[in-house]
Amino acid sequence: MRLSWSPVELVSRLARRGITYNFASGAPDVTVLPIDEVRRSFENVYEKYGTLILAYPGAGGLKELRIELAKYLSRVLGIRASWRDIIVTAGAQHAIKLLSQLMIRRGTVIYTENPTFVETVAPMRFQGARLIGVPMDDEGMITQELESLVRKHGPGIIYTIPNCHNPTGVSLSRDRRKHLLEIAEKYNLKIIEDDPYTSLYLNTQPPLKSVNDDVIYVGTLSKVLGPGFRIGFVVVGGALRNNLEKLEQHDFASSTLTQYLVYDLLRRGVAERVIDEARGLYSRKLGELVDSLNHYLSGSLMFNPSCGFYAFISTKINAWHLLRKCTKAGIAFVPGDKFYVSDGRLNTARLSIGSIRIDLIRDGIKTLSNIIRTMSTNIT
Amino acid sequence: MRLSWSPVELVSRLARRGITYNFASGAPDVTVLPIDEVRRSFENVYEKYGTLILAYPGAGGLKELRIELAKYLSRVLGIRASWRDIIVTAGAQHAIKLLSQLMIRRGTVIYTENPTFVETVAPMRFQGARLIGVPMDDEGMITQELESLVRKHGPGIIYTIPNCHNPTGVSLSRDRRKHLLEIAEKYNLKIIEDDPYTSLYLNTQPPLKSVNDDVIYVGTLSKVLGPGFRIGFVVVGGALRNNLEKLEQHDFASSTLTQYLVYDLLRRGVAERVIDEARGLYSRKLGELVDSLNHYLSGSLMFNPSCGFYAFISTKINAWHLLRKCTKAGIAFVPGDKFYVSDGRLNTARLSIGSIRIDLIRDGIKTLSNIIRTMSTNIT
Repeated sequence: MRLSWSPVELVSRLARRGITYNFASGAPDVTVLPIDEVRRSFENVYEKYGTLILAYPGAGGLKELRIELAKYLSRVLGIRASWRDIIVTAGAQHAIKLLSQLMIRRGTVIYTENPTFVETVAPMRFQGARLIGVPMDDEGMITQELESLVRKHGPGIIYTIPNCHNPTGVSLSRDRRKHLLEIAEKYNLKIIEDDPYTSLYLNTQPPLKSVNDDVIYVGTLSKVLGPGFRIGFVVVGGALRNNLEKLEQHDFASSTLTQYLVYDLLRRGVAERVIDEARGLYSRKLGELVDSLNHYLSGSLMFNPSCGFYAFISTKINAWHLLRKCTKAGIAFVPGDKFYVSDGRLNTARLSIGSIRIDLIRDGIKTLSNIIRTMSTNIT
Repeated sequence: MRLSWSPVELVSRLARRGITYNFASGAPDVTVLPIDEVRRSFENVYEKYGTLILAYPGAGGLKELRIELAKYLSRVLGIRASWRDIIVTAGAQHAIKLLSQLMIRRGTVIYTENPTFVETVAPMRFQGARLIGVPMDDEGMITQELESLVRKHGPGIIYTIPNCHNPTGVSLSRDRRKHLLEIAEKYNLKIIEDDPYTSLYLNTQPPLKSVNDDVIYVGTLSKVLGPGFRIGFVVVGGALRNNLEKLEQHDFASSTLTQYLVYDLLRRGVAERVIDEARGLYSRKLGELVDSLNHYLSGSLMFNPSCGFYAFISTKINAWHLLRKCTKAGIAFVPGDKFYVSDGRLNTARLSIGSIRIDLIRDGIKTLSNIIRTMSTNIT
């Protein structure tokens, strides 16, 4: 058993002690979270359902919510699914954990982008997965490399964030999407598609799930409506759907109350109104981050981020040492080494635009660059 | 991997199709759920914390809630614990699952009452536990038998519901409590104490945890404030506490919003006001059930229930066949066979007073007894 602190959790704990420039958090921007609409939804479900909102959740999720999710998926993401094939989970992280318990045994091979999101691969590792990192470039996972690795390491599961990748910000190109699906079919590999950010950007391609129904899709409303609801979902059919629903009996973790709230928010079109507003904001924020990096830390970007919340940079110096200095100056970010499933690099960092105010980004990067410069000089 | 439907979940699904006499559900009575206070708490946390209630939860749980839980545990249950040793989970079932993942490997021996709660042992089985059922009588688990079994099967974990046992309604006697703790110490066994009902009855003894801090305590507010919040907790120190907190990073399942709500409900003393009202109601309901069984189904009680929501009866005939007839007459209960970890008996049933209206109990049992009588006659 391997249990350790996620660097994201570690840095969030640090960040609670007063941080001006929070480049660490993957949380959405509070200015677009629909807090007043949540209040209205509370009144709605309180009036309409009364004590039902305090009842036990059933395994699989609230039917009303699953039906609204089916409509949302079809309208916003081009995914057509019956409500029965949408299993509500207590957030996408919970979904990944449940899927890991069902699909992974000691030695199961998981192919994934290298680097990848450190928190989602943690439950896979806990189940005994053997993670094989696939190199990336600005077009996402290099599928030629994937194919060679599959030939070498054999059958397994592909875990991928094809759009707005965490932590690199790149999206899988059109040709590689095709190739990825071909590889999955040719070598009989399951694909788990983790997709938190697609709806928030206009420059994205539709999810893999929308073109190939064999893909196991993990979605969430955390980045749109707020992570505090803990409402995610898996879109999957057949035996895996049934087992997932049965496995949910082992924790019954999804709050009935928050399921009703998200149901009402979806029903009233609040999620889509948030998306409309957020699309402008997040692409301006990501643009501001990239501009600032190009200006103050030229050459630091290891990938050219196109969407999502993240940019992945070379810090030149040990990122944990850098972080220690930075937190004193009110800057937080997540060191990048743990995002690698192999060949981890200590002089890398993930910068997030999720929760930092847009007008602080430039100044934060300027300060960061000054600290890096000073520390680099001191070392040499 | 063994995944099957819990009989409780199966029957709840049945019961959704219109049931007059719901003896199946372990949910609390809606008439004592503080729905208006929940609404007030929503306003309170909305005003005071704003978008913070929609933020990511940290592993371990919201500090404010943990501090209120520490006070509640001390006042209501006589358990003294630092807030750091109280880990918030997404309900008690989630707590049991996380503990199972940390403590159970293939072949780990779990000693438990036979019968026991079918849903909590499911994640233990999933982890590969070998469940050893310990016989019970009206004083709870027969600890002499436990000791013989431990001598035979060796080291392991004791999973017990010492107060207001599910599904039998009995509580462990004073002498056996002492003996149980002695056995645990002598043979170096960990005890997991599952304790959802103690606070709701006046005739209970304090939890094992309050007299022995080595006990791992699983608690919940589901039966007091409502299961829909999904707020449970584990009271545990040391390495297990740390690992539990780390393991929570793998699902981050506890809703921030419902944590804030329960925090505010506890802070305002709502849980204790509910308990005051519920104590009278539930003991009247349990009394009514026992009276009705003694009158209409004399001799059916397999144990003499003293507290909690349940009575366990002999149905004389196959309880699944009986259930089919009963649902047509508007009666639901949970067949008892799956509650046994060994030597399961098909002609048993768990009857719950949790959610059925008190004025329906007598009539429901009368109808049930008529159906049993008719079916028994037809068989012979």
